[in-house]
Amino acid sequence: MQHSVTFTYDDRQAQVTVPTNTLLSEAARLAGVEIGQPCGGQGRCGRCAIQVTGGNVRRRSTLRLSTADLEQGYALACQTVIEGDATIYVPPQEKIERRLTTDRVVAEVSVPADYDYLLCQTVRRLFVSLPPPSMDDQTDDWSRLQTALRLQHSIERLTCSLGVLRKIGPVLRQGEWQVTAVVEYTQPPDRSAARLIDLLPGRLDEYAPLWGCAVDIGTTTVTLWLVDLVTGMVHAQVAEYNGQIARGEDVISRIIYASRPGGGEELQQRVLETINGLLERACKRVKSPDAPLTPQQIVKVTIAGNSTMMHLLLGIPASSIRLSPFITVVNHLPPLTGREVGLAVHPEALVDCLPGVASYVGADITAGVLSSGLDNAENVMLFLDVGTNGETVLGNRDWLVTCACSAGPAFEGAGVVHGMRATSGAIEEVWINSETLEPTYRVIGGGKPKGLCGSGLISLLSEAFLTGILDKGGNFNLAAPTPRVREGAHGGEYVVAWGDETATGEDIVLTRVDVDNLLRAKAAIYAGFTVLAENVGIPLESVERVLVGGSFGKYINVEKAIQIGLLPDMEWSRFEFLGNTSVKGAYYALLDWRKRERITHIARRMTYIELSADNTFYEAFTSALFLPHTDLNKFPSVAEALSRTHKKSEEEAPYATRADTNLS
Amino acid sequence: MQHSVTFTYDDRQAQVTVPTNTLLSEAARLAGVEIGQPCGGQGRCGRCAIQVTGGNVRRRSTLRLSTADLEQGYALACQTVIEGDATIYVPPQEKIERRLTTDRVVAEVSVPADYDYLLCQTVRRLFVSLPPPSMDDQTDDWSRLQTALRLQHSIERLTCSLGVLRKIGPVLRQGEWQVTAVVEYTQPPDRSAARLIDLLPGRLDEYAPLWGCAVDIGTTTVTLWLVDLVTGMVHAQVAEYNGQIARGEDVISRIIYASRPGGGEELQQRVLETINGLLERACKRVKSPDAPLTPQQIVKVTIAGNSTMMHLLLGIPASSIRLSPFITVVNHLPPLTGREVGLAVHPEALVDCLPGVASYVGADITAGVLSSGLDNAENVMLFLDVGTNGETVLGNRDWLVTCACSAGPAFEGAGVVHGMRATSGAIEEVWINSETLEPTYRVIGGGKPKGLCGSGLISLLSEAFLTGILDKGGNFNLAAPTPRVREGAHGGEYVVAWGDETATGEDIVLTRVDVDNLLRAKAAIYAGFTVLAENVGIPLESVERVLVGGSFGKYINVEKAIQIGLLPDMEWSRFEFLGNTSVKGAYYALLDWRKRERITHIARRMTYIELSADNTFYEAFTSALFLPHTDLNKFPSVAEALSRTHKKSEEEAPYATRADTNLS
Repeated sequence: MQHSVTFTYDDRQAQVTVPTNTLLSEAARLAGVEIGQPCGGQGRCGRCAIQVTGGNVRRRSTLRLSTADLEQGYALACQTVIEGDATIYVPPQEKIERRLTTDRVVAEVSVPADYDYLLCQTVRRLFVSLPPPSMDDQTDDWSRLQTALRLQHSIERLTCSLGVLRKIGPVLRQGEWQVTAVVEYTQPPDRSAARLIDLLPGRLDEYAPLWGCAVDIGTTTVTLWLVDLVTGMVHAQVAEYNGQIARGEDVISRIIYASRPGGGEELQQRVLETINGLLERACKRVKSPDAPLTPQQIVKVTIAGNSTMMHLLLGIPASSIRLSPFITVVNHLPPLTGREVGLAVHPEALVDCLPGVASYVGADITAGVLSSGLDNAENVMLFLDVGTNGETVLGNRDWLVTCACSAGPAFEGAGVVHGMRATSGAIEEVWINSETLEPTYRVIGGGKPKGLCGSGLISLLSEAFLTGILDKGGNFNLAAPTPRVREGAHGGEYVVAWGDETATGEDIVLTRVDVDNLLRAKAAIYAGFTVLAENVGIPLESVERVLVGGSFGKYINVEKAIQIGLLPDMEWSRFEFLGNTSVKGAYYALLDWRKRERITHIARRMTYIELSADNTFYEAFTSALFLPHTDLNKFPSVAEALSRTHKKSEEEAPYATRADTNLS
Repeated sequence: MQHSVTFTYDDRQAQVTVPTNTLLSEAARLAGVEIGQPCGGQGRCGRCAIQVTGGNVRRRSTLRLSTADLEQGYALACQTVIEGDATIYVPPQEKIERRLTTDRVVAEVSVPADYDYLLCQTVRRLFVSLPPPSMDDQTDDWSRLQTALRLQHSIERLTCSLGVLRKIGPVLRQGEWQVTAVVEYTQPPDRSAARLIDLLPGRLDEYAPLWGCAVDIGTTTVTLWLVDLVTGMVHAQVAEYNGQIARGEDVISRIIYASRPGGGEELQQRVLETINGLLERACKRVKSPDAPLTPQQIVKVTIAGNSTMMHLLLGIPASSIRLSPFITVVNHLPPLTGREVGLAVHPEALVDCLPGVASYVGADITAGVLSSGLDNAENVMLFLDVGTNGETVLGNRDWLVTCACSAGPAFEGAGVVHGMRATSGAIEEVWINSETLEPTYRVIGGGKPKGLCGSGLISLLSEAFLTGILDKGGNFNLAAPTPRVREGAHGGEYVVAWGDETATGEDIVLTRVDVDNLLRAKAAIYAGFTVLAENVGIPLESVERVLVGGSFGKYINVEKAIQIGLLPDMEWSRFEFLGNTSVKGAYYALLDWRKRERITHIARRMTYIELSADNTFYEAFTSALFLPHTDLNKFPSVAEALSRTHKKSEEEAPYATRADTNLS
C-alpha cells in the first residue's frame, strides 16, 4: 500500500509516495530532503529527529526522545516507519542539536537575582566633598579626607597604603576638594571600617562600571570573568591554558618543578603572565564609551583554584603538599593586593584568594560547592569536578565530605595529541557511523577543526567503543575495515579528520596513548566518587543529583559520559552539568560578601578523606580502567546499547559499506 | 716686694720669684710654664684657669668662673695678680676645656631607667613549639602556627604578609616544629593582636640582641642609632649629610626640586641611599660573636624628621607644604614596613614614622619635645631646635605652642664655604687673640683641621665680632693689622687656618657670604622664639629653662651663642643643650610604646602658629640680622663684654703687636 509523505523544511516542501513500512529517513532521501544521520541510522544519535505534524507513523524506537518530545510529535527518522499518509516538519539541524543538549549544559551566566550593589558589594565608590583648607584650617589632607568620609559615609576607621597616600594630595587639589573614593569595607556588613583603594578627582557617574574579576586557576586551564560590580554583569569570559603546563601536567610534577632552584619563581611568573594576558584580552572585549578599559581599572579580584595553584601563584613553597602527611602552608589566605600578588590590576585592588580545605581539595572546590548549591541541599548530592585533580564532594546542608584523585588534564584537552581547549576550532562532538565507521563531528565556531576538546574526546571515545573500533580495554581493532584505523607512532589510532579538512592540514587522530590518558582520567574520577560514597556508607543510587563541574565544551552529552564510564549509570535527569563551577563560585563571592562568607563556612565544615590512605581507591581505579568498567553490571544502559549495536551489526553486516559523504 | 710662686704641672714643678701685682700668667711665662691664652689675656676664654692651692693672690676678674670653681681655688691666670707667696696647680689643658664646656653638652645616651623589654617593647621574640602534623592532623601550617601562638602566647589575632607566609612552611620544617616568632604587638598594651614579622627555626637565646634603629632625617644631616631592643642599649651612633643636600639646602628648594619630573623619586632615592649607607656603617660597628650583623636583621625602625623630609622619604608629593595655606598630605602616618619604604632593613620590619603637627613643625619637633621633657614640665619652658628649619616650642604640661622659621643649614656646617659636620677634623671651637688677631682652635679628634662645624662657626663669629674683625653688621674690617683678614672672592674673609696647617692644604676661611648665612640663621631662630613668646604673652624672662636641640658639635659654648645673638641673654644655668633631641625622641619611642603614645599626644595637642601670617616675624628677623642685635639693650652681657674688650683695646693699643705663635 502506497502513502503520500510531505516534508516541510526551510520554508519549502517536498512530497514523495512510498509503501507501508518505509523508514521516514528513506522517504526523506527519496524526496531529496537531507536529514543528518551521524550514527548511521541506529537511533543512537537522535540527530534525525523530525516532527510528525499529521498522519500515521509507527515509532520502532524512541530512545533519545523525552515524553515532552513525543507530545510535540517528535520521532527519529531512522526508527520510524510510514503506516499512512503523513506530513513531516524537518527542523533545522541546529535546532535539533540544541534540543538534544541544551538542557544539560551550563546556561549563560546571569546576575544573581538577589544581587544589590549597595547591600552585597564590599568595594564601593563613594563621593566626598571636603571643605578646602585655609590658613585657619591647616588640617593635613589625610585627616581631612578621613573626617569627610566619617561625616558623609560613617566610615570611622579608614586605612590606606603608602601608594594611595602618595596620590591623595594631588587628587584632592585636582578635584578641587570634590573626589570619588573607591573603598573596600573590610568587615562587612559593618561599614565603619574601610580601606581606601583609590581616590579619583571629581564626582563619577554613580552607575559607571566598577570593575572586578573572578578567576579560576586550574592546573590546566585558567578562566577569567570580567565583571561590572555595579550591575553584577559579566562583560567578558576568557580562558587560556595555564602557562605552567609546559613545566608539568599535574600538580605533583609542578610541585617537583617548583622545588628546583628558581622553579617556584618561574611557575609563579608563568601563571601571572597567563592571568595578566587574560586580563588584557578581557578588557579589550569591553567597548568603553570613553578611554579603553585597562586592567589597572580592576579594583577587586576573587581567585579560586586548587591549593597547589594557589601556593604557586603566591610564591608560597608547595613541597609539603606532595609529601606525606600532605600539608598546605595556608588554606585561608589574608586579603592581598594586586601589587603584592603581582597582578596587572590596580595595585591596591583587593585580591581575595578563596579558602581551601586541604592539600588536594582547594578553593576551586569550596567555590564549586557554593555555586552548585550543594551546601544548601536538603537531600544528598554528589559534586564532581571533572578537572585535572578530580575532586568529589558528597553531602548536603548538614554535612560535607570530600576527596581528590589525580585525573590528569586529558578532559581539558591536554596530554592528548590533538587535544585542545573548548574554543573555536575544537571538535566538541563526534558520531561514528557504525556501518561505515565514518565520523561526523561538530566544530565550535563552525570552521575547519583544529583539534578535540574534552566533550569531543568523551563522545569520540564512546563512539569508537560502541562501533567496535576500540575494545573494552581501549585497544584499537586494527582489522576494522576503514583506512581511518591505522598503526600510528605509538600504537593504533583513529583518524577523526583527514588533513584536507582540518585547519592545520594535519590529520586529527585519537591515539592509543590518548585513549590510555582518557581511561586513567575517567577511572580516577569514577573511583573517587564511588570510594567516597562507600566510605560514608551512602549508596550511589540514593544520591538525588549529580552536579558536574569542569571546563568542558559548551555542550555535554551525558549519555556519552556514562558510556565511557566517567559518570555513574543513572537517569540522565539526575545529572546537572554546571560548567566551570570554580569560576562561577569566585564570581558569586566577588559580588556578595554573604556568599564569600558562605565559602569560608564551606571550607571549615568540609571533611577531607585521604584516598591514598587505603587500598580501596587503587582497586576501584584499576577496575574502572576499562570501557565502561570491568563490571558491566554497573552500567546496564551501556550493556543495552552494546547489545543493540552488536545485534544491528550482525543483522546489517557492519563494515560492509562506506559512507561517501561527511555529514558535518 | 718679691714673692715666690711655685707651679705644679704634669707631675713637675717650677718656681719663680716676682714682685707684687705680677700677673700669674706673666709669672708662669717667666717660670717656663705654658698656659693657654687663646683670647690674648682678656679674661674672655677662661682657658688660662689654674688652681691656687695656697698663698695670696687677687682675682681682678672672675668672669668665666662659677662659685664652685672659686671654692676649688680656680683663678684666671691673666686676671689674677700675686700678692704674696703662692703655690699654683696648672691643670692639663684638656681638663680645663672639659670643665668649661662639659656641663652644657649632651651626655652619653643612657637606656631609660624604666625600660623593660617585656613591658615596653612592641616587637618581641617568642618561642613556639608546635605539634607536628600527621595524617590525622592535616591542619595547614599557618593555622597550626596561629593556634600555637594563641595557646602559648595568648595571641588571638595574628596577621602576616605574603612575604612571611612564603617562609613559614620551610622554617617550621627546618626547625622541626620548634620556632622563634618575631612579632609586633599592633595595639599595645593589648597582646592579643600581633603581626608576624619573621619566623626563625629553633629556639633563639632569649637575651640575644633584637635589632632596631632610631633615625632622624634632618634637612641637612641624617642621624641613625642602632639599638638592641632587648637591653635598650645604643650600639652605634652614625650621622651623614642628607644626600638630598645636592638638590637644595632647605626644605623649600627641595620641594621645588621634587616637583620637577622625576625629582621626587630622585630625592626619595637620595635619602634612602643615605639611610641605607648609615645602616651599613652602624651594623659594621657592632662586633657580633657569630655572623656579622646586617641591616636585614633590623626589625623595627622609628623615624623622626620634619614634615618635608618625611614626605620626600615616603615619596609623598610635598608641594602643598610650600604653597599657602601650607598643608601637609599626612601628619600621622600608618605603620609601614621596610619593604614599603625601601629601607635595607628586614622587609617586614615595622617602620614607624613619628607624627608631625604641621607643614613646618614635624616629627623631629614632637620627638624633640618628648625627649626634652617639655610636655611634662610644670613651669614654662622654651624648646629650640637649632637646625635648618629653626622650630621653637613654648609651653609646659598644660599647653604647647610652636612655630617654625627657615634658618638654613649654616649651623650644620652646610652653606658655609669651609663648613662641615661635627665629625673628626672639624674645628669646634675658636678663640682669637684680641691683640694679635691670631686664632687658636680645637679640632675634633685632634688632627689637622678640615673645616668648621656649627659650634666652631658660632665661636668664630663671636670672636671675630668681639675682636673687631667683624662689625655689628657683619662687615670685615679690612684695615685690621693681620694678613688673616683679606679681600676674598666674595668680599672680606678671615683665615682661621693657613693651608700648611690644614688637612686639605687649603686655607680655612670665614667669608662674607658665610657671615651673612650665619646671621640669617641666627636671626631667624631668635626672631622665631621671641615672636612666639610675644604671641602668647609670655615674657622671655619668665621662661624657666631654654632647652636647645640641634646637631652641634660635642661642646657648645653658651656664652658665644649669646654673643652672636642666637640665644637670649640669660643666666647660663637656664640653658640646657640636649644635642639631637629628634633622634633621641625617636630612640625613646622605638623602645617604649608609652613614649610613642606620648608623642602622638604631643602632636595632637600642640598649637601651630603660622609666622608668615603677620609682619611681626619679619620685623623681628631684620632687627636680629646684627651682631648680636640692633638693640644692644637686649644683650646686656654682650654690651659688657664689648665695653671690656674695647676698653682693653684702647688701653693696650690693639693691632700694635702680633703674636708669633699659634697656641693650639
